[in-house]
Amino acid sequence: MTNTSKLLRNNHCLFLAYDQGFEHGPTDFDEKSVDPSYILNIANESKAYTGIIFHEGIAQSYYDPNTETVPLIVKLNGKTSLHPNEEPYSPQLCSVDEAVKLGATAVGYTIFIGSIYESKMMEEFSRIEDEAHERGLAVILWAYPRGINVIGKEKDKDTVAYGARIALEMGADFVKVPYTGSTESFSWVVKSAGTTRVVVQGGAKVDEQTIFDEAIACKKAGAAGMAIGRNIWQSQDPISVSKKLASIIYEK
Amino acid sequence: MTNTSKLLRNNHCLFLAYDQGFEHGPTDFDEKSVDPSYILNIANESKAYTGIIFHEGIAQSYYDPNTETVPLIVKLNGKTSLHPNEEPYSPQLCSVDEAVKLGATAVGYTIFIGSIYESKMMEEFSRIEDEAHERGLAVILWAYPRGINVIGKEKDKDTVAYGARIALEMGADFVKVPYTGSTESFSWVVKSAGTTRVVVQGGAKVDEQTIFDEAIACKKAGAAGMAIGRNIWQSQDPISVSKKLASIIYEK
Amino acid sequence: MTNTSKLLRNNHCLFLAYDQGFEHGPTDFDEKSVDPSYILNIANESKAYTGIIFHEGIAQSYYDPNTETVPLIVKLNGKTSLHPNEEPYSPQLCSVDEAVKLGATAVGYTIFIGSIYESKMMEEFSRIEDEAHERGLAVILWAYPRGINVIGKEKDKDTVAYGARIALEMGADFVKVPYTGSTESFSWVVKSAGTTRVVVQGGAKVDEQTIFDEAIACKKAGAAGMAIGRNIWQSQDPISVSKKLASIIYEK
Amino acid sequence: MTNTSKLLRNNHCLFLAYDQGFEHGPTDFDEKSVDPSYILNIANESKAYTGIIFHEGIAQSYYDPNTETVPLIVKLNGKTSLHPNEEPYSPQLCSVDEAVKLGATAVGYTIFIGSIYESKMMEEFSRIEDEAHERGLAVILWAYPRGINVIGKEKDKDTVAYGARIALEMGADFVKVPYTGSTESFSWVVKSAGTTRVVVQGGAKVDEQTIFDEAIACKKAGAAGMAIGRNIWQSQDPISVSKKLASIIYEK
Amino acid sequence: MTNTSKLLRNNHCLFLAYDQGFEHGPTDFDEKSVDPSYILNIANESKAYTGIIFHEGIAQSYYDPNTETVPLIVKLNGKTSLHPNEEPYSPQLCSVDEAVKLGATAVGYTIFIGSIYESKMMEEFSRIEDEAHERGLAVILWAYPRGINVIGKEKDKDTVAYGARIALEMGADFVKVPYTGSTESFSWVVKSAGTTRVVVQGGAKVDEQTIFDEAIACKKAGAAGMAIGRNIWQSQDPISVSKKLASIIYEK
Repeated sequence: MTNTSKLLRNNHCLFLAYDQGFEHGPTDFDEKSVDPSYILNIANESKAYTGIIFHEGIAQSYYDPNTETVPLIVKLNGKTSLHPNEEPYSPQLCSVDEAVKLGATAVGYTIFIGSIYESKMMEEFSRIEDEAHERGLAVILWAYPRGINVIGKEKDKDTVAYGARIALEMGADFVKVPYTGSTESFSWVVKSAGTTRVVVQGGAKVDEQTIFDEAIACKKAGAAGMAIGRNIWQSQDPISVSKKLASIIYEK
Repeated sequence: MTNTSKLLRNNHCLFLAYDQGFEHGPTDFDEKSVDPSYILNIANESKAYTGIIFHEGIAQSYYDPNTETVPLIVKLNGKTSLHPNEEPYSPQLCSVDEAVKLGATAVGYTIFIGSIYESKMMEEFSRIEDEAHERGLAVILWAYPRGINVIGKEKDKDTVAYGARIALEMGADFVKVPYTGSTESFSWVVKSAGTTRVVVQGGAKVDEQTIFDEAIACKKAGAAGMAIGRNIWQSQDPISVSKKLASIIYEK
Repeated sequence: MTNTSKLLRNNHCLFLAYDQGFEHGPTDFDEKSVDPSYILNIANESKAYTGIIFHEGIAQSYYDPNTETVPLIVKLNGKTSLHPNEEPYSPQLCSVDEAVKLGATAVGYTIFIGSIYESKMMEEFSRIEDEAHERGLAVILWAYPRGINVIGKEKDKDTVAYGARIALEMGADFVKVPYTGSTESFSWVVKSAGTTRVVVQGGAKVDEQTIFDEAIACKKAGAAGMAIGRNIWQSQDPISVSKKLASIIYEK
Repeated sequence: MTNTSKLLRNNHCLFLAYDQGFEHGPTDFDEKSVDPSYILNIANESKAYTGIIFHEGIAQSYYDPNTETVPLIVKLNGKTSLHPNEEPYSPQLCSVDEAVKLGATAVGYTIFIGSIYESKMMEEFSRIEDEAHERGLAVILWAYPRGINVIGKEKDKDTVAYGARIALEMGADFVKVPYTGSTESFSWVVKSAGTTRVVVQGGAKVDEQTIFDEAIACKKAGAAGMAIGRNIWQSQDPISVSKKLASIIYEK
Repeated sequence: MTNTSKLLRNNHCLFLAYDQGFEHGPTDFDEKSVDPSYILNIANESKAYTGIIFHEGIAQSYYDPNTETVPLIVKLNGKTSLHPNEEPYSPQLCSVDEAVKLGATAVGYTIFIGSIYESKMMEEFSRIEDEAHERGLAVILWAYPRGINVIGKEKDKDTVAYGARIALEMGADFVKVPYTGSTESFSWVVKSAGTTRVVVQGGAKVDEQTIFDEAIACKKAGAAGMAIGRNIWQSQDPISVSKKLASIIYEK
């Protein structure tokens, strides 16, 4: 079983994202969700996920590759939310070697599509992609439109499809993108990505039915699955939401 | 047979370019041309091409060096079209080593002649040229005038000839440049390039006869051939246009 | 005994900080405290400290790993106070290898959380963290909010908790942060740091009782201890203040 | 015979420069001089030169070290003339290793003295000087005053002498500088250069007698020789001008 | 005898500085002093110096380690005086390895304390300090306050003491600083430097008695010695001034 297939169930995927402590800060958390053990527990108990997303330090202290069953996705770069007026750049903060030591099945990296630092992140990602594939890890590109060149167009069909295409052109196994709002537009995103699997980002907490509808629409558009965080661990009943989502994503 | 001669037929060349998904985004494509397999099919069926141009990710997923017969040219750098107000810079996104693994016969790299980042791209290209020749690959320089210093002069005889000369001074085997509009002016471009073979870029979709006339004029000027993309895969009949172009380029 | 546990007594820690000659200049010192031997003497005589913080040069000339009993923490980066109008950046000035040669038990590094150079320091710290752990050293992150993005919020609960969280996400063993002013707010900082131990910075000289109260409050909030400098070596009676603080921090 | 002495005849030198295709573009050329073979032919036929200056690509395609008798000087850095409003920077575009493979006797490198990028070029040159001497090559510094700090003073005695001195302080074997206009002022340039040999740059085409007079004046000032290009290959009779210059430079 | 002790006589030092050709240009010289041999001659004849300061190129051509008796100090970085309106930065232009080959006893490096490029020079110096000590060379830091942050305060007690302290914190064996104007203030500089030996810079030519008085005052303040250039080789009688200074510096 390749590392890509370890991240799939019935050829689809559902990733539990927990990099928000880095990207947004602890304000996203409450007394329960601030604890990484709580998140791991949701993953283990719900059996809904084909991957869990951590930064290096949390993987190091909380994820034991010998006992955990949900595959580990190490997010290699990150930035804080303290820079609202700067063009977005997210530096590499964990090497592929470290990810291997932590027992990772895949690595994730964000390119802010449209940022004036886009070329710097592309260069970094191109090296990471080579190293990760060399070491047998799957590669997930967070292709997020951001910055002065794409303001107001972050979820437009053409912008999102461009990000998905870059993932294909650069050799990513998966690309994580925002939802474009309709099955029709999103199916163009999926086509643009070619053999690269498309994963929809969950985003901020919305009501449960909205998430379920989005999952259905994306799946219909040909997406491989979702990466979801706040809509799970900010929920009153994370296990049941996880299970319901899994049933949508994985049903044949 | 050296790698340079593999890219030639009757001492001329015709390259099928498909790096537009990176440079312009999927908006250049329709439902058919968005799929790299469609492009490969044109190349295989028409037997018109001495090279096909892909970025690393597409080569990885769609080009099998064991079965494909059209030589692979891996484009090593790229930039998105999302930066209209920034001076153009195109970073290296694939190593020469990776290109070798993908079965490449040649590598391509763009220098935006006149850009304020020209020196950075020249430095990068000079290393690539050494590595590629060391590994036996042919080297193609995209010498594209761009940026504040050459605005409005991108297709002028002197600007284009300067780019062609840089290719010679830096040791490229081929240089890809815009057409200057006449056989007379383009023949100065060819002379400036010395032993470096000159390839004309196809550009945006125009009517077929225009392309054929351009091919005839360039050949008369001493150019080695053309690199063509949109005028093929945006065409209603890509196979027949390909064959017609090939007959012009390769005829003795 | 791991290097982390060498820095602990009853699972708590008290560090004697003497990097102010670098960060503030000799104006912090008087005729006695300008001499590093005076500081070492306080550490040795009071037996209050589980670590002493020096830059490379001072460790080299004054700290003999064969005879000193207080564990050495080498501060790897530093900046002078001569740059009030520049966004703060603190470059690495000592390698992990050098720290090992000097007999260090731990290394320290400052990230100015919120600075426009934050990403540069994060990148540097991520490499240091790997190297130090590889060599068996403990890693202490100075997570100091600074710069235009956090002006006036340097000691706010959310800003300080964000810095503490970054330490966890990046794999630091300890994080040194400013005090947020109350046990309640600081306990959120401690929770955000997860398994990373939280150490309160001492700051400028205040009256002794204020420091003792702060130590009590932080300890109640779950902090591991304090890092203290000016309140000790600018004191009339450094030994007795040290002992009193130690009794607060280490008492069970 | 060391590589330095290979570049000398009667302890003097005359270099044929042909890096203008890079520095100025093909506009310097006519139908004859655009061809590097024409230049080599002048060198071979006139027997006037102790060195010929090419960039890597031209050396690669036109200079055969097994048959050519004029020593090769590879110019390692270069910039185009397309950047009139930018401070001048000239990046390294050929390694010392490549120069060795091409059969070079010496390498050349330009520092724009006074440019805001002066320090960057000095750093690069200092590495090149070490590598080249390690490999047995002679080192020629083009010390050209340029940029906002020296506008209007590019040929002043003090500015040119400063450049010549830098060549000595950095260990160049030869320094190529503009002529300061008189034997008296130029003799200070030569003294400032100490053991480093001073070579006068030829510059734009002027009438023949002017060049001969300059050669005589420089030689009287103690210069080692000249590096000349346009005044030769833009001449109606390059062979005879070459021979006349040679007789001035080499006469005892 | 360690390399540090080779630079001392009766535990004090007097260095003959000749890096002004780089830092100020040949305008500092006359027909005699422009020649490095003249300087070496002063050193040899006066027997007054425990070190002579050259850049790489001059050491290479004029200093023979097999016959010279005055220890060589190679200045590793340098900048020209052509940049009055730029913040000062002085790049490394000679490696420690080269200094070893040249027979150096010590290396020198300038940090412009207060410059906006201070952190860049600190980083560079920290690597040099490690390499030089590894190779057994002594390390001398030129700690010169310069740039917008310290304008008008370049010789203030606190600024100069800060520079001296940085030398200690970073592990320099010697620090070269400007004189602060009085024994009292300078003694604080010496105390701030701890175990790092303090050397006073000579500066521009003044009358002889002023220099002798300064030497006496600095010595009384605890300084190790002086580094002097223009006041020697611009003097009418360099040998006698050298001897007089030596008698002041070395007397017990």
